[in-house]
Amino acid sequence: MFTLPQKESKAPTTCPGPASTQDLDSNHGDGLERECSRKPDWKLPEFCGGGDPTATASSGSSHLSSRGSIIKWFWDSAEEGYRTYHMDEYDEDKNPSGIINMGTSENKLCFDLLSRRPRTMPRVWGRWRGPCPSLCPNFSLREEVARFLSFYCKSPAPLKPENVVVLNGCASLFSALATVLCEVGEAFLIPAPYYGAITQHVYLYGGVRLVCVYLDSEVTGLDTRPFQLTVEKLEMALQRANFEGVKVKGLILINPQNPLGDIYSPGELRDYLEFAKRHKLHVMVDEVYMLSVFEKSAGYHSVLSLEGRVEPASCDFGMSGLRFGTLYTENRDVATAVASLCRYHGLSGLVQYQMAQLLRDRDWINHVYLPENHARLKAAYTYVSGELRALGIPFLSRGAGFFIWVDLRKYLPEATFKEEMLLWRRFLDNKVLLSCGKAFQCKEPGWFRLVFSDKAHRLCLGMQRVRQVLEAKSQVPDDPASCQSQESGNQRR
Amino acid sequence: MFTLPQKESKAPTTCPGPASTQDLDSNHGDGLERECSRKPDWKLPEFCGGGDPTATASSGSSHLSSRGSIIKWFWDSAEEGYRTYHMDEYDEDKNPSGIINMGTSENKLCFDLLSRRPRTMPRVWGRWRGPCPSLCPNFSLREEVARFLSFYCKSPAPLKPENVVVLNGCASLFSALATVLCEVGEAFLIPAPYYGAITQHVYLYGGVRLVCVYLDSEVTGLDTRPFQLTVEKLEMALQRANFEGVKVKGLILINPQNPLGDIYSPGELRDYLEFAKRHKLHVMVDEVYMLSVFEKSAGYHSVLSLEGRVEPASCDFGMSGLRFGTLYTENRDVATAVASLCRYHGLSGLVQYQMAQLLRDRDWINHVYLPENHARLKAAYTYVSGELRALGIPFLSRGAGFFIWVDLRKYLPEATFKEEMLLWRRFLDNKVLLSCGKAFQCKEPGWFRLVFSDKAHRLCLGMQRVRQVLEAKSQVPDDPASCQSQESGNQRR
Repeated sequence: MFTLPQKESKAPTTCPGPASTQDLDSNHGDGLERECSRKPDWKLPEFCGGGDPTATASSGSSHLSSRGSIIKWFWDSAEEGYRTYHMDEYDEDKNPSGIINMGTSENKLCFDLLSRRPRTMPRVWGRWRGPCPSLCPNFSLREEVARFLSFYCKSPAPLKPENVVVLNGCASLFSALATVLCEVGEAFLIPAPYYGAITQHVYLYGGVRLVCVYLDSEVTGLDTRPFQLTVEKLEMALQRANFEGVKVKGLILINPQNPLGDIYSPGELRDYLEFAKRHKLHVMVDEVYMLSVFEKSAGYHSVLSLEGRVEPASCDFGMSGLRFGTLYTENRDVATAVASLCRYHGLSGLVQYQMAQLLRDRDWINHVYLPENHARLKAAYTYVSGELRALGIPFLSRGAGFFIWVDLRKYLPEATFKEEMLLWRRFLDNKVLLSCGKAFQCKEPGWFRLVFSDKAHRLCLGMQRVRQVLEAKSQVPDDPASCQSQESGNQRR
Repeated sequence: MFTLPQKESKAPTTCPGPASTQDLDSNHGDGLERECSRKPDWKLPEFCGGGDPTATASSGSSHLSSRGSIIKWFWDSAEEGYRTYHMDEYDEDKNPSGIINMGTSENKLCFDLLSRRPRTMPRVWGRWRGPCPSLCPNFSLREEVARFLSFYCKSPAPLKPENVVVLNGCASLFSALATVLCEVGEAFLIPAPYYGAITQHVYLYGGVRLVCVYLDSEVTGLDTRPFQLTVEKLEMALQRANFEGVKVKGLILINPQNPLGDIYSPGELRDYLEFAKRHKLHVMVDEVYMLSVFEKSAGYHSVLSLEGRVEPASCDFGMSGLRFGTLYTENRDVATAVASLCRYHGLSGLVQYQMAQLLRDRDWINHVYLPENHARLKAAYTYVSGELRALGIPFLSRGAGFFIWVDLRKYLPEATFKEEMLLWRRFLDNKVLLSCGKAFQCKEPGWFRLVFSDKAHRLCLGMQRVRQVLEAKSQVPDDPASCQSQESGNQRR
């Protein structure tokens, strides 16, 4: 059906594509290396890599600039899983043996609610247009966004519409922020594992790199939970970058975290903001899963409940196809500079109209959408986590987002990314698509992200296929009681 | 109403903003110069400039990168006219003494037709979505675009859907093409006067510059019409760029031309393509006004009727707020590289659905929309051109597009851009917004672009205000019979 590979807006990297951990210096093929070396500033990000080096070399085109070749290379070498998936998508009626997608972080549970929402449809070529079909969303939409964020982020004072910038998605926000905050070759800190596509978002147009703050599953005396971010780790990563001559201009946080599902406490958030202030770093907090915290006891707090900072926040209805992302920042220079790029990340007037209508419908959101959405997310989570427990598989979740971070390390004969990749491919061969840890820059081979925000029949079939693959392995789970879950702070069975 | 300045997608520069002709080297203020000098490759385009240098200096922000400051500076210093306009927009009932906008190249004549088109509205959160809410428009939309372009561009063979890339507007297409075809600091050739916003489109993200092929109104032995582009002029501009060490990678053509309203004959087009082939240049042909040729005898030919080349073509329903631009290229490397950037220039699934529906409705387009649109454009043109003739004002038009290129040189006491600016400001003070030649890099002071694609009562009032300003000047038009029009090759009275 598709001749050019199609991309998902969330979780685009399920397999070790260019956002993966292999060191590109030894791995990206001569053609690309040669292209890159032509412009000293336009270095490849140190964390991209993987894919097929020979394919990389052949992607160099005399028609393209060096950065054009890199952009094409990212595309060509990424997302083997999604290409396979799109050629063989599961359909209950038409293709029941097709691939179940547990890799894309999209909320498939509530499309019916959104479809049934009472609404006034605009006359498509008329009413939505308004007197000024500006590229930048009009002020009334920004007013709606400000009201919406004030309410759901529990800001101490009402947020100001003039601090709101609306673009066509979070990818564009990261791209624009990287460009206006950094010179080519400068960097942002980011705790890893992280949503791997951010590597491309800051790099493809901006030429900006990510410096990873690597987290691991080991629980030390200082750390109270696996993969916990600490100021000490931030300081060490920054020092390392400084030592290597990489200028760091900002810190990216994702809260609730993707893929960990972790949630930062207000105290932790304050510590990270203090660290950033100390080192004069911009802080960008991606709160795209803010409204998908389905465990009330998880204790989620938006950074906007603390104080205003540069931050991209994306209103979250799990509709990646809608293309809607908002930035709230009290730094007017940054707001203006990002808004200046809005003609390249413009939102259709039709979508502006629809979103303003939706955001305004507080009654429906509060009394219909959110309660039902959270109940469905929780039910899906309960089912999948129960299946994992029955298999004796440890996992992490705090009751937020669409995914569980699953520890399949014991299914790898050796703790290598090669073995992780082989396991990932066995899942795909058995018609279930997952995302492996390497795609999120996880340093420990064997972790997978499993998306559960899907209808029961697909979830059930997907988990059955996961189980088949794992049970076909000779290693039998040693102790089902060892399930490690952090859902709402409780160990669940 | 608007706190951040709003931008128009077409004709964004009515006044001498940063896309203007003044040499920035002597004019852009110390702050910006300092920023730019930090990155030798990230030079300001030589043709931008203007605005208030002191304002420029103050736009340098310690929070922004050097390119971020430049991006913000473009925004801050541009579009005085649009800011004034948006604060005081004409409204027949609410603000009858407000500003009439004859500066934005938008077709305000046919919104009623588009509103009344029989259509099936999708269930907004349902049907349009489809199984894969990909960022890149789905294949069926690309099939529709290919069929549409094959028909209206009269291509010798059917165009292929896999060569179609769809992004959220022409601005994004230029930005993406500049990035994937050029290194930072490289350049495209473009005949001037040209739609000034292209300067920003290729520069803001791509760091690519434009090398002007300056045209003038003088009719020489070789040139058969004012502002005619010749291969000789292309060769000279390319030689000059080479001499100055600027690497030129492509040629941008706009056909029908904006702001000249000129149309290239098939023979001329072939000559330009031959020139480009000889020098290994990419050719990008912007055909955004292709369906707005309202004089059949104008003899318009799309470049796709000749042969396939890299070219951004934007389907034109004069709906700048819709955000829809298409690229057709037979160079697969270029198509893939541009498509790789589509997550930053993504189109809402809702707009994809609407556009596919619209493009498919060939019967309505052919028998309702286009005949009526052309009739209305012609009527509006006939009125405005008649008014200009009555005033004895020479102008150029070939019966295409939404505007007339008007020669007001005789109203300038001196042939300077300062006087052009003063005249432009007198129009604005008298509540009518026009675009002056400087915004299009015209080398001759005194030319203005006047948009006529508006409802009769606004046009009438706008022309009345134009007349008031011109008649207030002491110079009385010397000979009403001297009107120079190229409408369909005929001199009209």
